[in-house]
Amino acid sequence: MTQLYLALVHHPIVNKRGELITTSVTNMDIHDIARSCRTFGFENYFIVTPLKPQQELISRILGHWNSDLANDYNPDRQSALSYIRVVDDLDQAIGQIEQRGNGRPLLAVTAAQMKQIDGGTQQLREMAQVDNRPLLLILGTGWGLHPQVLERADFRLKPIYGSAQDGYNHLSVRSAAALYCGALSEESLF
Amino acid sequence: MTQLYLALVHHPIVNKRGELITTSVTNMDIHDIARSCRTFGFENYFIVTPLKPQQELISRILGHWNSDLANDYNPDRQSALSYIRVVDDLDQAIGQIEQRGNGRPLLAVTAAQMKQIDGGTQQLREMAQVDNRPLLLILGTGWGLHPQVLERADFRLKPIYGSAQDGYNHLSVRSAAALYCGALSEESLF
Repeated sequence: MTQLYLALVHHPIVNKRGELITTSVTNMDIHDIARSCRTFGFENYFIVTPLKPQQELISRILGHWNSDLANDYNPDRQSALSYIRVVDDLDQAIGQIEQRGNGRPLLAVTAAQMKQIDGGTQQLREMAQVDNRPLLLILGTGWGLHPQVLERADFRLKPIYGSAQDGYNHLSVRSAAALYCGALSEESLF
Repeated sequence: MTQLYLALVHHPIVNKRGELITTSVTNMDIHDIARSCRTFGFENYFIVTPLKPQQELISRILGHWNSDLANDYNPDRQSALSYIRVVDDLDQAIGQIEQRGNGRPLLAVTAAQMKQIDGGTQQLREMAQVDNRPLLLILGTGWGLHPQVLERADFRLKPIYGSAQDGYNHLSVRSAAALYCGALSEESLF
């Protein structure tokens, strides 16, 4: 069974004009994606930001939910958030995965528009199984992952297209994460 | 092809203790679910709340995105939000769907825990196709839909379970909406 990891990247990201930026962490991204990762059996959810004040903000949010009071009120939330790891950059996330002893993770990147595509979630799952490697699903914020992340990827995932006849596919990163987590999970039953 | 609709219910809802409550509308629920509905070809996204101040709040948010400035900056967002209809209760939503002339919609309800289950998304799609009826997918907020909504449903959907070995399935309503929209869509390709 493939070990699954997810990384939400806040740097390096592009803005609307394609310029390199760092985005802010949002509370809803922390919670929603943690719950999707937890539901679909992911090992960890890496929140990638080099900004120390942002890292401290995440720690404060997680600290709240780690309190006895919050845990009594909503133990399911605390359980999901315990899967979060805050890292400076993708290499730190990759390093933490390698320390688990199952080799270097396959890096899979996502985008709403992708120039060069390696395949869909089914092919990605098969590739990870054949190679017997952990899989790191990388999602961007803002207007998407910077080319320097896309270029180092092992696998460029096909964007999520629905049945909107004009090809509209502007999902939130939280929704895209839920759909990718569900599709990459070993048994997604509903 | 089945006409798909989604309703996000803020009343009648239950709280943690199973009591009848009305929840507040949240900005993120408006945006994320509108974008999922738009991506997966849903006809409308009904936001159900009987509270006039809440309805006005939604109108103000939609009004902002309907401005020329916002539309120039992010036309995709405006396009998704134009699918939203604000209604007092489920019956108003059902009435609006009936006015489209394709009959009374099949009412499908969702919950993280469901005592009695009629089937999964595949069976629901087949049922709607056989009956040739529109389909209204009903999602709750808070701690879930009140029994009075569950009891009037035509179809109680199987909860979304992932591969978490302990059966954890506490997704956000935004994530659950994305997954259900994707699964009910005619062609969900990714």
